[in-house]
Amino acid sequence: MEQQGDSLRHHCGVVGVHSANPDNIPEKLFYGLFALQHRGQESAGICYRKEIPEDGTGRFVTYKDLGMVSTVLSRYLEKPHPSTLGIGHVRYSTRGGNRLENAQPLAASCNKGSAAIAHNGNISNASALNARLSMDGSIFQSTSDTELILHMIARSRQPDFKSALIETLGELEGAFSMVMLHEDQLIAIRDPWGFRPLYIGFSDTITAVASETCALDMLKIRDFREVKPGEILYIDSSGVKSETFAPGTEPKRCVFELIYFARPDSLVFEESVHLTRKAMGAALAMDESAEADLVMPVPDSGNSAALGYAEQSGLPFEQGLTRNHYAGRSFILPTTSQRELAVRMKLHPVREVVRGKRIILVDDSLVRGTTSRILISLMREAGAKEVHLRLSAPEIKFPCYYGIDIPTRKELISNSLSPDGIAAHIGADSVKFLKIPRLMECLKDGEGYCYACFTGNYPVQPREV
Amino acid sequence: MEQQGDSLRHHCGVVGVHSANPDNIPEKLFYGLFALQHRGQESAGICYRKEIPEDGTGRFVTYKDLGMVSTVLSRYLEKPHPSTLGIGHVRYSTRGGNRLENAQPLAASCNKGSAAIAHNGNISNASALNARLSMDGSIFQSTSDTELILHMIARSRQPDFKSALIETLGELEGAFSMVMLHEDQLIAIRDPWGFRPLYIGFSDTITAVASETCALDMLKIRDFREVKPGEILYIDSSGVKSETFAPGTEPKRCVFELIYFARPDSLVFEESVHLTRKAMGAALAMDESAEADLVMPVPDSGNSAALGYAEQSGLPFEQGLTRNHYAGRSFILPTTSQRELAVRMKLHPVREVVRGKRIILVDDSLVRGTTSRILISLMREAGAKEVHLRLSAPEIKFPCYYGIDIPTRKELISNSLSPDGIAAHIGADSVKFLKIPRLMECLKDGEGYCYACFTGNYPVQPREV
Amino acid sequence: MEQQGDSLRHHCGVVGVHSANPDNIPEKLFYGLFALQHRGQESAGICYRKEIPEDGTGRFVTYKDLGMVSTVLSRYLEKPHPSTLGIGHVRYSTRGGNRLENAQPLAASCNKGSAAIAHNGNISNASALNARLSMDGSIFQSTSDTELILHMIARSRQPDFKSALIETLGELEGAFSMVMLHEDQLIAIRDPWGFRPLYIGFSDTITAVASETCALDMLKIRDFREVKPGEILYIDSSGVKSETFAPGTEPKRCVFELIYFARPDSLVFEESVHLTRKAMGAALAMDESAEADLVMPVPDSGNSAALGYAEQSGLPFEQGLTRNHYAGRSFILPTTSQRELAVRMKLHPVREVVRGKRIILVDDSLVRGTTSRILISLMREAGAKEVHLRLSAPEIKFPCYYGIDIPTRKELISNSLSPDGIAAHIGADSVKFLKIPRLMECLKDGEGYCYACFTGNYPVQPREV
Amino acid sequence: MEQQGDSLRHHCGVVGVHSANPDNIPEKLFYGLFALQHRGQESAGICYRKEIPEDGTGRFVTYKDLGMVSTVLSRYLEKPHPSTLGIGHVRYSTRGGNRLENAQPLAASCNKGSAAIAHNGNISNASALNARLSMDGSIFQSTSDTELILHMIARSRQPDFKSALIETLGELEGAFSMVMLHEDQLIAIRDPWGFRPLYIGFSDTITAVASETCALDMLKIRDFREVKPGEILYIDSSGVKSETFAPGTEPKRCVFELIYFARPDSLVFEESVHLTRKAMGAALAMDESAEADLVMPVPDSGNSAALGYAEQSGLPFEQGLTRNHYAGRSFILPTTSQRELAVRMKLHPVREVVRGKRIILVDDSLVRGTTSRILISLMREAGAKEVHLRLSAPEIKFPCYYGIDIPTRKELISNSLSPDGIAAHIGADSVKFLKIPRLMECLKDGEGYCYACFTGNYPVQPREV
Ligand SMILES: Nc1ncnc2c1ncn2[C@@H]1O[C@H](COP(=O)(O)OP(=O)(O)O)[C@@H](O)[C@H]1O
Ligand SMILES: Nc1ncnc2c1ncn2[C@@H]1O[C@H](COP(=O)(O)OP(=O)(O)O)[C@@H](O)[C@H]1O
Ligand SMILES: Nc1ncnc2c1ncn2[C@@H]1O[C@H](COP(=O)(O)OP(=O)(O)O)[C@@H](O)[C@H]1O
Ligand SMILES: Nc1ncnc2c1ncn2[C@@H]1O[C@H](COP(=O)(O)OP(=O)(O)O)[C@@H](O)[C@H]1O
Ligand code: SF4
Ligand code: SF4
Ligand code: SF4
Ligand code: SF4
Ligand SMILES: [Mg+2]
Ligand SMILES: [Mg+2]
Ligand SMILES: [Mg+2]
Ligand SMILES: [Mg+2]
Repeated sequence: MEQQGDSLRHHCGVVGVHSANPDNIPEKLFYGLFALQHRGQESAGICYRKEIPEDGTGRFVTYKDLGMVSTVLSRYLEKPHPSTLGIGHVRYSTRGGNRLENAQPLAASCNKGSAAIAHNGNISNASALNARLSMDGSIFQSTSDTELILHMIARSRQPDFKSALIETLGELEGAFSMVMLHEDQLIAIRDPWGFRPLYIGFSDTITAVASETCALDMLKIRDFREVKPGEILYIDSSGVKSETFAPGTEPKRCVFELIYFARPDSLVFEESVHLTRKAMGAALAMDESAEADLVMPVPDSGNSAALGYAEQSGLPFEQGLTRNHYAGRSFILPTTSQRELAVRMKLHPVREVVRGKRIILVDDSLVRGTTSRILISLMREAGAKEVHLRLSAPEIKFPCYYGIDIPTRKELISNSLSPDGIAAHIGADSVKFLKIPRLMECLKDGEGYCYACFTGNYPVQPREV
Repeated sequence: MEQQGDSLRHHCGVVGVHSANPDNIPEKLFYGLFALQHRGQESAGICYRKEIPEDGTGRFVTYKDLGMVSTVLSRYLEKPHPSTLGIGHVRYSTRGGNRLENAQPLAASCNKGSAAIAHNGNISNASALNARLSMDGSIFQSTSDTELILHMIARSRQPDFKSALIETLGELEGAFSMVMLHEDQLIAIRDPWGFRPLYIGFSDTITAVASETCALDMLKIRDFREVKPGEILYIDSSGVKSETFAPGTEPKRCVFELIYFARPDSLVFEESVHLTRKAMGAALAMDESAEADLVMPVPDSGNSAALGYAEQSGLPFEQGLTRNHYAGRSFILPTTSQRELAVRMKLHPVREVVRGKRIILVDDSLVRGTTSRILISLMREAGAKEVHLRLSAPEIKFPCYYGIDIPTRKELISNSLSPDGIAAHIGADSVKFLKIPRLMECLKDGEGYCYACFTGNYPVQPREV
Repeated sequence: MEQQGDSLRHHCGVVGVHSANPDNIPEKLFYGLFALQHRGQESAGICYRKEIPEDGTGRFVTYKDLGMVSTVLSRYLEKPHPSTLGIGHVRYSTRGGNRLENAQPLAASCNKGSAAIAHNGNISNASALNARLSMDGSIFQSTSDTELILHMIARSRQPDFKSALIETLGELEGAFSMVMLHEDQLIAIRDPWGFRPLYIGFSDTITAVASETCALDMLKIRDFREVKPGEILYIDSSGVKSETFAPGTEPKRCVFELIYFARPDSLVFEESVHLTRKAMGAALAMDESAEADLVMPVPDSGNSAALGYAEQSGLPFEQGLTRNHYAGRSFILPTTSQRELAVRMKLHPVREVVRGKRIILVDDSLVRGTTSRILISLMREAGAKEVHLRLSAPEIKFPCYYGIDIPTRKELISNSLSPDGIAAHIGADSVKFLKIPRLMECLKDGEGYCYACFTGNYPVQPREV
Repeated sequence: MEQQGDSLRHHCGVVGVHSANPDNIPEKLFYGLFALQHRGQESAGICYRKEIPEDGTGRFVTYKDLGMVSTVLSRYLEKPHPSTLGIGHVRYSTRGGNRLENAQPLAASCNKGSAAIAHNGNISNASALNARLSMDGSIFQSTSDTELILHMIARSRQPDFKSALIETLGELEGAFSMVMLHEDQLIAIRDPWGFRPLYIGFSDTITAVASETCALDMLKIRDFREVKPGEILYIDSSGVKSETFAPGTEPKRCVFELIYFARPDSLVFEESVHLTRKAMGAALAMDESAEADLVMPVPDSGNSAALGYAEQSGLPFEQGLTRNHYAGRSFILPTTSQRELAVRMKLHPVREVVRGKRIILVDDSLVRGTTSRILISLMREAGAKEVHLRLSAPEIKFPCYYGIDIPTRKELISNSLSPDGIAAHIGADSVKFLKIPRLMECLKDGEGYCYACFTGNYPVQPREV
């Protein structure tokens, strides 16, 4: 159903675990990935170092498949798989198509040992690097950035893995929050701009890395911190070592992680997602002009902002739309003419709340506008008197080169219609977006964020060949 | 995961559709059942009358399997299955075990024609009837009430199906909201006490019957009414005929449908579920003595009541617990020592909301208390200063004989502990239940409800052999 | 693929096991059924009595599904299921359609206890019995004979199960080789005509009943004998008791079991299948007039007869057709125009053997002639000079009412064409069938067999309502 | 079950198809691979060039999975997939383990275009080549020879794909029969020694390449010839071009293809498999000294040789062992103590044939001897008086480096026991192997074959690093 949806696509989530003593690493990866399922529902995979008790060594075992974490990886819950380190990945496919070849982690052996990578982001100079490597005789079995990175490490003239890795990182542009395995070491890396979030946490027995803190919570880790932009962390039995590989770059975190992608109960970029969203909702309320009876979220992405709006405005908060617990990806409605049915299956008004009311309806953002159009018609049908749509994101007008799948400019409704035009188009009484300056005020360090999909000012210039 | 859960079990949901003209009935049943998925997640099934164009007749086709609606029935979305009537069922198994034999609808042919039944409820004198039929030479392939009812109709000395059905209904005690197919007729029946909900609705082309109105909404039906307790409806191409088969019985609707089972966006018993729950929450607030900083629901069953509580109390409403979108039934955690993990996978605190706060935590009811105990420890871990648990149901102390699976009396925490004892046991600062008189005030016709699981006063005396 | 095949359909196979001491009965049933897989590939099932150690009782557990034995039942190989008795069934569906409702064994409880049946054959007066039971108020959830029999036992006025069973058997006409469970007893029954085979065997620890001896071999049973026509055997911890329930009936065994259905390494009807088939082949050779270079079977059903033909004729035996090991039921070729492809996927000539040769091609029987037509064209294509088709069965002209699925009279090629006409139609140089007197000479007791599908002389008059 | 078997492992089968006009290439690959299923049952895959009608180009689509052809690829039978070329592969895993990473075909893009390979054989200097490539910075995602070859082509300094391919082939040692796709060209290659078979065939509309002619037969191709050792064929819309890349090498075909691997109805190495096997059986008979009553094969691998033996010796040929039609890979018997059960499930004596007889039992070869031991005990149990085991292969004593998975020297029974010792060990009255000179006499060009697993004389020296 979500195929016909009308949200931006989460890209990926990563997790990595190192344990001082042999532990059931695949199980830990399972729980971590389960908490990150919202970041990618099309494939799931892990790679862990299987202990070979006979000779004290290990070898990497990879298992990945199309499907959800619970389907693909539940086999690992049945019995222990002694190991000391592993990484995991959930993915929503973008350019690469929905192919298993592009599923991650990717493991390979090369002249600098065996390595595996799971990666969240998008290398914006990938085409150029690809062309160079290809010219030099590399083969590409997928279109994923991970394969590119492994090639670069193998190709590097540097004498060892570590220096080859540093050299490689120096050539990458764009977004990359990565976890890697190299022999008996877990490595965590975040690009110098810090586009995608990454956290590291510590408990008595394990060290774990994950895209969002909700995954660390699943592992009962309370002591954590952000992996810093441009930081590289080496984690092994001797402890954790930190290095900086790109000093001097200004952070440009993806503001959309806070607006929409991350889970409300996570921290990303040292910000509470829920509280930041509440602040965005409050900011919307500050500029309000419409008179209304109540504030309602489009669940669940509009929940936090609607709460913030309600608190700021003093209007009553209501839950006048329910989100079906079972509306997942289990089947595909055959024809697009059934899009209305798809929305109806997911979201449904509570007639008694909506009837006769002037409603402030809060959601995160507007992409194509198709879902909103249907939703508003359902609300009218349920008797709503006025529907004022408020978005906690500014108008999306430009593509993203840092790992988010935004439709083409033509499909983005804000490129063809003004807010008033949109209101007319989707049947709302009014439509308003959060202004960028207001958005910046909701953040501790408003300057340290990327807003390119709203402004077209790209912090790292995309390079396509 | 839910196996280890700690809620009452929804029993069943039913839907029936009749169309004036041949239509894709299985598809309509699919959408109706999809909306009722929360009433039973273990098996799904439909029975429809397949048109035989050659001779203008039809025959019943049944398809049912263990699994969710989208898995079991999505095959019916691919191509049209011309038909004019059908029924469907979702089920959570109770006594009968999780066996396919007990899945519904059940179709059979007998001396009064071909018939199929889907049933929600529990016949409280089933054992006695069973014994009698068995003595007379009936065989039982399942333990379901539907098989019993079909036997009784076949056995009846009445000359035709209709009079045999009426005779049979007269002998049934307990809860039964049913949809039936008999030849080219759809029949809807509700027991004289009206324990379980049932609605009938009409659009231009179809007449549909369903447990809750949310299923009728999926079929774009806006014109509906309750099937009355003791009412029987015959729906065929000549229209709808209503009869009453047990005049004079006092309605005793299951109050738990409103407290917990039904979807908040449904009407049941001519009440809005969401608004009734808000009223229950408000009623809880009226008797409050604790001082607190904010009100939070245990999502999603506590949502509406928490909103009502907040409005009544004037305390801020917060969403300090998130409910994982992907926590379903896809796998079973191997050991019960992992129960904590199961709760953690489903519910997770927003640390920044909870930290340092005195919290009113609102949920629907308390069964064993195990989930609440873990949940409160998660909230303490996240820094909550005080947690006051409020339940929008009274204390559950007795079994239900009308179709709800309540644990044994020994397992019900309210049979061994007072609210204070429970608070100590689960680590809450206080625990309070809604008082029955308060609960009755939330209902249009408080007297017309069953409260037996709280009081032990059974409106229909259970009869076990 | 076999859907488009052109053989008679095996009907069913049954197995039953009783063990003096608790044993892994489902595993034993698995192995027995695996050996009987050729008797039915569409569904498999078992019912066994699960020991309840707590109170020394047991209850029947049934598991059945559409699919092959190894798919449906391999779950039972993983761990022990302590039990002392059980029955199993493989099925090829006939009239009842390929529906799970008709899968066996069928278990039910009634006034005479709990019972389960697995049945091979066809009750030829089923419609009449059905009508009577229906009139008396029985309901039918399937179209299977097993449900009918259970109803009759339950309905019987006899005071106990055993006498009710005997009474019921007295009313059944047609073919029934059955295994039953009743409480802690395994019962084996064969109809008075002995249409379908049934054997009982004994090892130190178990007593087993099966359609063919190959299933007893799998259980390492060497000491066995035929269950006699009209015999009923009660097997429990006190031993085996035999009774005769229909003295005086003349046996009429299905000659087609020997011609085609049974496995060559089995005994049925106290005859070796392989040796009897060899005798049939030899008998064909006795009446031969064609000159030829070699004898070849259509594998595997023609193997034994071809060997017998070669020995008798003195012509060299060759294997000039291979039968693909992997041609099973795993997929269905979409269009019937692909029937040629289906034959090609299963049978393939060895060009170097066939080229330039005059060939006696031996198969068991001719039904529609479609496969033979394609097969002969493949042989011509491979260079065969002459192809003389010899069938070890007489011409099939009439339907069977005793459990074999024979196409309608119109579809049977021998009803429209003479052997010469068939030869012209399928492209053979000549076609000859085994004469009935010759066939009778191959059997120890030629008079004790049914030949109705060749002659139209039905030993038990079919009765349809 | 076969896991516990005791045969040599077939390695792989390949097929390639080029069509002048767009055709349903995946369907053709399906049928070809279906006929080659006996060459590998663990994974199946295809890669075809999907036509992009918009711009007249195409792109390679790969689909492969663990499982049988009918399971993995039947999806391609449902609707047409217009294409002009594709390749396919079935695989039995050897060193690489049963991992999907090693499944074929393998597709990749590189500086010389897009290419895909499916390969049958084993590169005996792979380790050395691997080491060199790795040193130069190549990464390895699998342990398959196909990945190696693609790397070498990409790495080559030659200016174009074709010359790079030729250069690469010049460096490969060992066995490789390959089909490749490069842009719109299908390429077929056979190593200079011709270890593994490969045929090319032509019909009006398509050109196809396959390991054995039985796959060409499925495609209704009658006009075919061997791809010659050291030949490379370029097939595209302009026709077929042949080149020789390693003139002067002496062919060393794998004699085991004729003894055991290939299907009896195939040609390989311009020899009829069935007739060659018959000759081997006859050769065994020439040196016979034992007196016997009959000759019997171990089906199906002993069939042809047993026939040849019987013809030569004048002894009657009998089918005294049946091979179960359904004994496949569908499940794994849990413990090795059940090996006897596994043999019993696959092979079963016809008691009436065997009893009291002195039997010449013919099979292809003896590896560990475990199966034969059980089999002979089953025959004794069935009453065989004498069992003389005859093998149509010489004694296997050495490993194979050219693509066949032979157990370690220690496990090969002929390394520890003489024929008489083996007879004693497995319970046979005598055991005899075919002598190498006799074997050579059965072949048109006895010198042109490899016999290394019998003699230790390796035609290409294996090189491990
Ligand atoms: N689509 C929906 N949206 C909101 N609430 C729902 C929906 N479907 C069912 N519910 C409500 O959810 C509650 C059950 O969900 P929840 O509390 O999360 O699970 P549990 O059954 O474990 O208590 C019920 O009270 C039901 O009324
Ligand atoms: N467990 C959760 N509880 C609440 N919100 C969640 C949870 N997981 C993800 N989210 C949030 O849900 C939103 C996506 O859900 P929703 O709006 O229902 O779907 P859609 O992706 O169609 O917009 C995101 O904003 C994400 O932050
Ligand atoms: N369709 C077929 N018909 C007859 N023989 C075949 C067929 N396919 C493969 N074979 C042969 O079967 C042999 C393998 O089968 P078999 O001996 O039964 O199994 P195993 O691999 O256990 O020895 C091979 O020699 C092969 O040539
Ligand atoms: N394991 C076996 N070995 C040899 N023959 C068998 C075996 N199992 C069944 N048969 C025989 O195989 C025949 C059916 O196989 P076959 O002729 O290949 O298929 P079809 O059913 O299409 O005619 C029957 O005659 C049966 O007796
Ligand atoms: S362009 Fe938009 S979505 Fe992409 S990183 Fe920047 S803020 Fe995030
Ligand atoms: S006993 Fe409780 S659960 Fe049962 S019907 Fe009455 S109120 Fe509902
Ligand atoms: S009619 Fe033919 S198939 Fe039927 S029982 Fe008689 S001999 Fe057998
Ligand atoms: S060593 Fe043996 S199996 Fe290997 S290629 Fe030579 S003959 Fe064939
Ligand atoms: Mg949303
Ligand atoms: Mg709840
Ligand atoms: Mg046959
Ligand atoms: Mg063999």
